Formats: sequence, structure tokens, C-alpha cells
Amino acid sequence: MAYRKTPAEIRRLEAVREHLITCATSVVAEVGWSQASVTAVADSAGIAAGSVYQHFPSKAALAVEVFRRAAGREVDVLGEVLNGPGSPVERLSHGIEVFARRALENRGLAYALLAAPAEPAVGAERLDFRRRYRALFAEVVREGMAAGLLPSQNGEITAAALTGAIGEVLVDPLGAPAESTTDELLAELTAMALRCAGAPAT
Amino acid sequence: MAYRKTPAEIRRLEAVREHLITCATSVVAEVGWSQASVTAVADSAGIAAGSVYQHFPSKAALAVEVFRRAAGREVDVLGEVLNGPGSPVERLSHGIEVFARRALENRGLAYALLAAPAEPAVGAERLDFRRRYRALFAEVVREGMAAGLLPSQNGEITAAALTGAIGEVLVDPLGAPAESTTDELLAELTAMALRCAGAPAT
Repeated sequence: MAYRKTPAEIRRLEAVREHLITCATSVVAEVGWSQASVTAVADSAGIAAGSVYQHFPSKAALAVEVFRRAAGREVDVLGEVLNGPGSPVERLSHGIEVFARRALENRGLAYALLAAPAEPAVGAERLDFRRRYRALFAEVVREGMAAGLLPSQNGEITAAALTGAIGEVLVDPLGAPAESTTDELLAELTAMALRCAGAPAT
Repeated sequence: MAYRKTPAEIRRLEAVREHLITCATSVVAEVGWSQASVTAVADSAGIAAGSVYQHFPSKAALAVEVFRRAAGREVDVLGEVLNGPGSPVERLSHGIEVFARRALENRGLAYALLAAPAEPAVGAERLDFRRRYRALFAEVVREGMAAGLLPSQNGEITAAALTGAIGEVLVDPLGAPAESTTDELLAELTAMALRCAGAPAT
């Protein structure tokens, strides 16, 4: 008869897996993808390096899970703001501000998600997530056009532009230690985004 | 006495190295980074795989050289247009059109340069080159403001936004086979970029 895990064992393994993902996320935020070795993650989680492989077949698989969880939270938060109350233009502006502020409050992790050189499997995830950002922006731009608040434009192109622009604008600030310029940066970033979508200057 | 290469040997080695880079660039354009193995490049160049390592210590080193050469050409072409004749706004619009048209005419290579998941060493090059694009755009935006053609703005942020926006707008078209939409895409892309920089609608 094949060995079967008991419900208690399954729960324990799931808890260890979640603990590993949390620890790996912190390690990546602190030292970046390249330095986030299986050993470093195992040390941080207080388990043997070999045990990591009980949960993830490779370092790349663990990195992909870290990326998906962390990037997924940011997509969800942005989606909530973009689909929340307010006019499409207000939601766009507010969504970008919230996204950028969260990134600037967790620079190490945001840099890893947005820009840091990483293994190809993480690069593939990054492309997937950018598609999700584009879809969110495209919807709010469409609503803005329908409401007569934004001029006629190809919403897909504007959405892609916003996705790429926001990420690139944040790359250098995320790599810098100083936080004094946050408010000015957020004001410039949202102003640029509204220009890009053709919203009248406020 | 240490063995010294003769001038003829040095020239021959340099010629083989250049041939390898040319062949590797074609292989990357055709099959992407992940499939461009040392064996595939050696086959394409008509030499033994082991000989590749006489010229490049690793596949990553060869990939970095392929990236630098190809991306360097695009930066140079863009720089020529952005620093060429015409008003700053005309140069910006024309530069983006030339950049995008060249990318759409060599989709495989452009996708590899701009977006395709690649090893971390290539990712680091990509960040470096994006800085060069940003510097070029920042200069033309500054000139546009000085000439009173663009509204007051943080030119560095607009330059980063343009760099990120153009790359992201091109990702999906570069991955698609159809070329029928090129003119419409170029028109929408340059319109978006001019809005982003605050140029009056034309």
C-alpha cells in the first residue's frame, strides 16, 4: 500500500512551505535575486538547505513563487483602486500613486519585482504580470474615453505605455536610499501618466 | 620565451570572433536567448563548439557581447536622429518612429533586446542600455522646454517614462507575426509619446 500523508502532515508541510516563501521574500527584498541562494533562504527559515527541495524542485521554482505572490499582491491592490470609487481619471491617478508609494516603501522587493536582473523563469513571470497591469490600465482608459474625460486613443497602447513608463520611472528611485523626494516624484509621475493618457492638466 | 601570437594570427582570431558574434546575433534573432546554445552558435558559424570558448569564457559572455553590439547600434541610430535636424519635438517624434520601425523590421532581435527573458548578465546590460536611452530622451526634452515647445516638467522622469513606454508598447507587436498594423502602431506610439512629453496635439 502506498504511503499516504495524514491531514496533520499535509498541514505541517503547507505551513513550512508558506514559511519558506515568506522568508525567501524577505531575503530577496534584502539582498536581491542573485544573492538569495537556497542556503540563505534555508538559514533564514531555520531549516536545512536540503529540506527546501522537499517543497520546491529548484531555486528557480522558489523564485517564481516569491515573484508571483509579491507581484500578485501589487496587481490586486492596483486593481482595487482602479476599480474603486471616483472618476476614471481620478482612479488612474490614485492607482499610480498607491502603486508607486507602496514600491517606494519596500524598495528592495519592488526593485526585485520591477527591474533587477533575474533568472529567465522570473523574467517570464515579469512579462506575464506586465500583461495583467496593461489589462487593468486599458480598462480604466476605456472608461475614461467612454465618459468623455479622455480623448480618443488606442487604449491598449496607452495601457502598455503606462505600464512601461511607471516601472522605468521607478527604477532609479528604487535603487537609491534617499526618501526625501518621494512626494515630488509621485506628483511628477502621476502628472506624466495623466499627460500620457491625454487627461487635461489639473 | 613565452609564445607570442603573430599579427596574422591576431587578425585571424579577431575575424573569427567577429564572425561568431555575427552568427550568434542571427541565432538569437531566430530562436531567442534560451535556445541559442553554444552548440547552435558554433554550428551556425561552422566551427567546433569547443572553439567558441577560445573567444568567450561562457555562453553568458557571448550573449552579453551580442546584446551590447546590437543594442549599441540602436542607441547610436536613435542618438543620431534625436541630435539631428529639426525642432526638438520633431526629432523626438521622428526618433521614436525610426526606433520602432527598425524594431518591427527585425522582430526576433528586437524582442530579444527589449523583453525576452534572458540570463541575469543580459538583464544587467538591459538596465545599462535603458539608462543610455533615458539620457538621450532627457536631452531632447530639455531642449524642447528651453525652446518653449514643451511645458515645464521633470525631464528625467519624462525620459524614463518614454524609455519604458516605448519598450512596453512594442512587446506584443514584436511577438506577433503580422506586419499589417505597423503604420497605425507607429502613429499611435508617437502620438502617445508626444502627449507624454506634453507637446501640443498636431
